Amino acid sequence: MRPADDLGTDHSSPEPADETIDRRAFLQRGLSLGGAAALAGVGLDSRAEVSLPPWMTQPGKPFSNYGQPSPHEKATIRWISSNAAVPGNGISWTPLHNLEGMITPNGLHFERHHNGVPQIDPARHRLYLHGLVGRPLSLGVEDLLRYPMVSRLCFIECGGNSNTGWNQEPVQAAAGNLHGLVSCSEWTGVPLAVVLDESGLLPEAEWLVAEGADAAAMNVSIPVSAALDDALLALYQNGERLRPENGYPLRLVIPGWEGVLNVKWLRRLQAATQPVMARNETAKYTELLPSGKARQFTFVMDAKSLITSPSPGSHLTTPGHYPITGLAWSGRGVIKRVEISTDGGKTWAEASLQQPVLPQCWTRFRLPWRWDGSPAILKSRATDETGYVQPERATLVAGRGRHGYFHYNAIVSWAVTREGSIEHVYA
Amino acid sequence: MRPADDLGTDHSSPEPADETIDRRAFLQRGLSLGGAAALAGVGLDSRAEVSLPPWMTQPGKPFSNYGQPSPHEKATIRWISSNAAVPGNGISWTPLHNLEGMITPNGLHFERHHNGVPQIDPARHRLYLHGLVGRPLSLGVEDLLRYPMVSRLCFIECGGNSNTGWNQEPVQAAAGNLHGLVSCSEWTGVPLAVVLDESGLLPEAEWLVAEGADAAAMNVSIPVSAALDDALLALYQNGERLRPENGYPLRLVIPGWEGVLNVKWLRRLQAATQPVMARNETAKYTELLPSGKARQFTFVMDAKSLITSPSPGSHLTTPGHYPITGLAWSGRGVIKRVEISTDGGKTWAEASLQQPVLPQCWTRFRLPWRWDGSPAILKSRATDETGYVQPERATLVAGRGRHGYFHYNAIVSWAVTREGSIEHVYA
Repeated sequence: MRPADDLGTDHSSPEPADETIDRRAFLQRGLSLGGAAALAGVGLDSRAEVSLPPWMTQPGKPFSNYGQPSPHEKATIRWISSNAAVPGNGISWTPLHNLEGMITPNGLHFERHHNGVPQIDPARHRLYLHGLVGRPLSLGVEDLLRYPMVSRLCFIECGGNSNTGWNQEPVQAAAGNLHGLVSCSEWTGVPLAVVLDESGLLPEAEWLVAEGADAAAMNVSIPVSAALDDALLALYQNGERLRPENGYPLRLVIPGWEGVLNVKWLRRLQAATQPVMARNETAKYTELLPSGKARQFTFVMDAKSLITSPSPGSHLTTPGHYPITGLAWSGRGVIKRVEISTDGGKTWAEASLQQPVLPQCWTRFRLPWRWDGSPAILKSRATDETGYVQPERATLVAGRGRHGYFHYNAIVSWAVTREGSIEHVYA
Repeated sequence: MRPADDLGTDHSSPEPADETIDRRAFLQRGLSLGGAAALAGVGLDSRAEVSLPPWMTQPGKPFSNYGQPSPHEKATIRWISSNAAVPGNGISWTPLHNLEGMITPNGLHFERHHNGVPQIDPARHRLYLHGLVGRPLSLGVEDLLRYPMVSRLCFIECGGNSNTGWNQEPVQAAAGNLHGLVSCSEWTGVPLAVVLDESGLLPEAEWLVAEGADAAAMNVSIPVSAALDDALLALYQNGERLRPENGYPLRLVIPGWEGVLNVKWLRRLQAATQPVMARNETAKYTELLPSGKARQFTFVMDAKSLITSPSPGSHLTTPGHYPITGLAWSGRGVIKRVEISTDGGKTWAEASLQQPVLPQCWTRFRLPWRWDGSPAILKSRATDETGYVQPERATLVAGRGRHGYFHYNAIVSWAVTREGSIEHVYA
């Protein structure tokens, strides 16, 4: 019914303690943006009185079967960091600092490959369900397309995302190149529970060993309970069939769980009583704690948030209004609150959360901010529906010790210098 | 908190009258899909026992800065229909029949251009606000990026979408090539109300004349009330900056209103007391009714739905289970209900609506269906929150007469033949 307030932003949050954060003042005082030139006295009532840009004086480019970004947006790319000796092993990062909203376009979804992107003919790809099942199955893509499907907006985050945060000194890089091993899409596919039911999963099966059809045959073990909850055999990403680098033609999606469990190019699910103890659950994804014990099978991604703008690479040209915006997410459900500090954590103001706020999904937060020209330290802090609060870095490091590598989710601090540039700091 | 039912599908709808539509039976009886081969007796517990596909025997392709679809998905493209004499004037269609979920990937968002796609340098693009304003403004893209933003998931539909429905005989074509002048994205931008407020819009201003920076200088008139409601100056589409063919660097988005009002490459907003009576509100978008009066300024897109699968081009190989799925949307708010008939409208069953259901946004609906091998006629019927029910074709034609061209939103009928092919029929 289009009520006047259905733009989706929640403006009901309490007034911030920091007087430079004042969303009401933003609109009341006018923006006073340096670049917004007033045109009083310039006659604009006839188009001829304004000189036409060159693209209005000649026909434009033709239609296209599949569109591409503007050539002026070439800086908005995945930054690739792969192994020089084994170029198919590495990562590429989603440029979070260049994006808005909560959808990651498919071309910019982060990548993690162990031996490159297999070029799979979907007509020859099959998913095998075997092991502790009453009826082993071999399913082609065309078979799976006849099953009932559901869609799910959710993030996928690599368990190793943000891991330079464990370094002794803060790394200076763009937000996406530090934290961009996370992306958010609408995935559509067959509930794994439906296919497991058809296979007659035996009661003694407690784990599923999932294997991809890449040349590394990447495999991991997944508790059956997760598979029976909300795991998807995903065939579509953001409306279209999966991209090759995101698992075409079939990917396992387990909302909120470590990226590595969202097995791409899925070809096998073997039901078993025990995990297989694959490389990515033993040599990797297992961490020694200060107590001498180890963390293993740390599936769920904890609540986290990040200010994407302003962020390193931004330049605040003059004192004045700058919107603070970023992303928050939690593997445990919905984000309940994001707080922003501009004074290094002394005071906090509650940000607006863009609606809809969905479980295991990116939530865009926003807060107007007036920079007064003096140094500032920006932080964001997420709280999820379980009451879990994103920790400060010192707390995280104290709890996990110096062997941490995965699951880095501490509060990130961006320092605004007197010159208006942004630096990554530990504060 | 990941409750077991948070896949987002509403299973609470009443039981259908047609016994071939039975969502509970679907899971209880097993799928009996022809292609799902049982593997009993085939040892699969070691990978070596299954012959490896060729893509597992050699390293895959390298990482990419910006991903592209699989070469096996070349049929999923926008179908182009442009004027042979003026190739920049025409349309391209979103392939609805190949898509799932509610997001349209940016490369497949439909196009309507009057003189091609202008290749705009964003550093030289400006938006002028002038006419009946206290403070005329000239805003660059960098200026707009400093304003507060909101994100909005919504459809954009061309007012001329589906207009072959007015033909005396049903056109045989893929669903997207008949009805695909509609797409759905997450748009992010500056509320137009904020910028109008800054310009000091005068009380006598009742219309805004919006003009694009294409070589047609396409312009239309928009009531100020809509602009002050939820219109956006959109800078981002599905997370990234707009694509050139969707208005880069700036597009007006008015959720739920005719596509033509969502002016691409927006360069001027002139406040006025009267509409400008542009070509696209007089020679076009004005229709003679049987009464002799004309419909004009028919801004809002009425509720509509479409079964995207099965649809023409699908082939039901054998009797058995086939999911029915499609899209529903309304310019007046949220979709409340979608009903499906498989017997040409004699009986109806309520489909599940994929959550979240959002205003002025595509809503994916789904219903299991068991085809018994006999001829069937599939229909979907949407009801929105205002109580408006999508009309049968005969009702629509009777009301609008034979001069209809725009706003065709009648129920679409797909006939399933005994051979399992799908034909477009009027039924």
